[in-house]
Amino acid sequence: PESKLPDVKTTIFTTVGNLARKHHAIDLSQGFPNFGADPKLMQLVSRAMQQGHNQYAAMPGYYGLRENIAEKIEKLHGRAYHPEKEITVTVGATQALFTAITAFVHPGDEVIVIKPAYDCYEPVIELNGGRPVYVQLDAKGYRMDWEEFKEKITPKTRMVIINTPHNPSGKVFTKDDMLRLQEILRNTNILLVSDEVYEHIVFDEKEHQSASRFDDLARRSFVCASFGKTFHVTGWKIGYCVAPEALMHEFRKTHQFSVFCVDHPVQRAMAEYLRNEDHYLQLNSFYQEKRDYFLKALKSSKFKFTPSEGTYFQLLDYTQFSEETDKDLALRLITDHKLACIPISSFNVGERQDGVLRFCFAKKRETLEKAVEILCRI
Amino acid sequence: PESKLPDVKTTIFTTVGNLARKHHAIDLSQGFPNFGADPKLMQLVSRAMQQGHNQYAAMPGYYGLRENIAEKIEKLHGRAYHPEKEITVTVGATQALFTAITAFVHPGDEVIVIKPAYDCYEPVIELNGGRPVYVQLDAKGYRMDWEEFKEKITPKTRMVIINTPHNPSGKVFTKDDMLRLQEILRNTNILLVSDEVYEHIVFDEKEHQSASRFDDLARRSFVCASFGKTFHVTGWKIGYCVAPEALMHEFRKTHQFSVFCVDHPVQRAMAEYLRNEDHYLQLNSFYQEKRDYFLKALKSSKFKFTPSEGTYFQLLDYTQFSEETDKDLALRLITDHKLACIPISSFNVGERQDGVLRFCFAKKRETLEKAVEILCRI
Ligand SMILES: CSCCC(=O)C(=O)O
Ligand SMILES: CSCCC(=O)C(=O)O
Repeated sequence: PESKLPDVKTTIFTTVGNLARKHHAIDLSQGFPNFGADPKLMQLVSRAMQQGHNQYAAMPGYYGLRENIAEKIEKLHGRAYHPEKEITVTVGATQALFTAITAFVHPGDEVIVIKPAYDCYEPVIELNGGRPVYVQLDAKGYRMDWEEFKEKITPKTRMVIINTPHNPSGKVFTKDDMLRLQEILRNTNILLVSDEVYEHIVFDEKEHQSASRFDDLARRSFVCASFGKTFHVTGWKIGYCVAPEALMHEFRKTHQFSVFCVDHPVQRAMAEYLRNEDHYLQLNSFYQEKRDYFLKALKSSKFKFTPSEGTYFQLLDYTQFSEETDKDLALRLITDHKLACIPISSFNVGERQDGVLRFCFAKKRETLEKAVEILCRI
Repeated sequence: PESKLPDVKTTIFTTVGNLARKHHAIDLSQGFPNFGADPKLMQLVSRAMQQGHNQYAAMPGYYGLRENIAEKIEKLHGRAYHPEKEITVTVGATQALFTAITAFVHPGDEVIVIKPAYDCYEPVIELNGGRPVYVQLDAKGYRMDWEEFKEKITPKTRMVIINTPHNPSGKVFTKDDMLRLQEILRNTNILLVSDEVYEHIVFDEKEHQSASRFDDLARRSFVCASFGKTFHVTGWKIGYCVAPEALMHEFRKTHQFSVFCVDHPVQRAMAEYLRNEDHYLQLNSFYQEKRDYFLKALKSSKFKFTPSEGTYFQLLDYTQFSEETDKDLALRLITDHKLACIPISSFNVGERQDGVLRFCFAKKRETLEKAVEILCRI
């Protein structure tokens, strides 16, 4: 039978990851930490299993965890979501994003996607018969053009997807950006999916501006978050989605029949762990230290860069010394220099060439040292 | 925006579960064990976390686990699936079923569903713009009428969903059933989704006949299975799907963007645990003992029954002593007798009344004793 996703190929993460392993390269490609998680968090999972929390959790998530999520959001963003009706624990942010799109995009709908973008939005839009409509950040500064955005809205626009802090550019939407977005969407029925998985990784004087902070955004928003990214356990597959009751009601219908619920012991552990707010508040400075080390060391390299404002990714501009495509250069870095990164043309419309490569600095100091050493030699 | 699933209500499992808790009823409703999982299995999860397997697993699943699944299927059913291309680890069988349906059902397609049926197939068909076409087992013996089935096939039939051992009837398809099905589907392009989550819970002289045993079924089949049900950890959300390469290739596109992968430490633990085949081969006799106890004790009750052939469910016929609808009686059992079960009219087309209630006997002996005591008093 014909494919519903004829254009989906093996992702760049799998391709580069396999190559990196083959060539024993230092791997700064896929976004995940190569250091350990907090032993306390693991002990909490073991304890939850021993205490017998091994059967189905409630479909929308263990209630205690939903309460803790509500508390955290109220503290950080000043909005009170109701744990019973407005919060659902998901199989990572991926399943939150998938579910929000699937529950609301009808055949023929348009969904505005800001490019470059991580690879998981468009296939889901297409799977539901929707059509992605692109707004492009400019190739050098990755600035958002809200006028262009506004022009892309049509009567068919069902949904807008934003991602702040932004993968791969490391840009963070300012309060002004969010207010502009709010003004543009006011008096429409357009839904907002806000991918905020890097919410706790924001540097310098910047502040993460969650969609949940803005009344007229919050009432149309699915805010998607990831415990995996925040607590260095991307393989535990746990995140959440918050949305106003009427939207969450529909979201849960798809959630219920796509996964039913999330690993129960892990939910219990997260609930316990979240009680200590230091566990997420320390993340900014933890990663700032890594970013700062990485960038300081790279000053003596041939790469140019604008410091990442958030996420655990840094773009490096190679146009000073090479005219290769980013894929060619990334490939050459792996084979000749034993260093892996992500060529972001695969995040761009028409594989646009920005002349940059993406490096993940969620790595141990010794890994970063080796990477920097190679990068300064090039 | 309009709902894509206007007819989905809160499931019977949530409704009855909440009522049971409120009335402190003995709960034989939702299908999950109320006894502990094997401590060895929990230790294996703890060990995997400590060993650092806390980041993303490979998208189709940890390779070692896929190898063990391949071995198990070859041993039990004589078919060699390729771990690299034909096996994917899923977030429980629910996500396997969801993904197989979503990846292949196009708007306008018909999917044949055998009723009564567990509640997770139809919403997914409808979410994809497909139309469920029903074949009904008869209200008393739950026999399959393959002639009726054959008549339901049209040029629009994309897929057939079967479930053996069958929830809620406890019927197990015989080799003859499977051969009939194979003959009917021969020379068509119709896909088969085979929900085999109770594969290791089959009683008396019966044998589970996996779709993977039959050449001309296997080549069109997604066989969906559940480690949660087999190893008493329904809350760990791990199962798998096997299908021939071309089908699995499409399946993984949806899998990748709906969940990306499954909890990594749990996958490592399952891989290790599966090495000892006793762990799944003992399940039949473990549950047979429970079924036998339950039925023996019920001989002195007013209920009539045909012994369940498989699954951990038993239907009890109450028509000898009551003319109530199954919902009314189930409600009365909770409020007046403090015993919860599932009224299966919600599994039936048009809430057909079969005059039976479904009881889950995956419970500790003491729970079954209390339940039996109540049932014999009624
Ligand atoms: C499942 S790949 C996820 C990693 C990631 O977010 C990234 O590298 O962009
Ligand atoms: C998520 S409810 C699952 C339980 C079950 O399979 C049943 O009770 O039929």
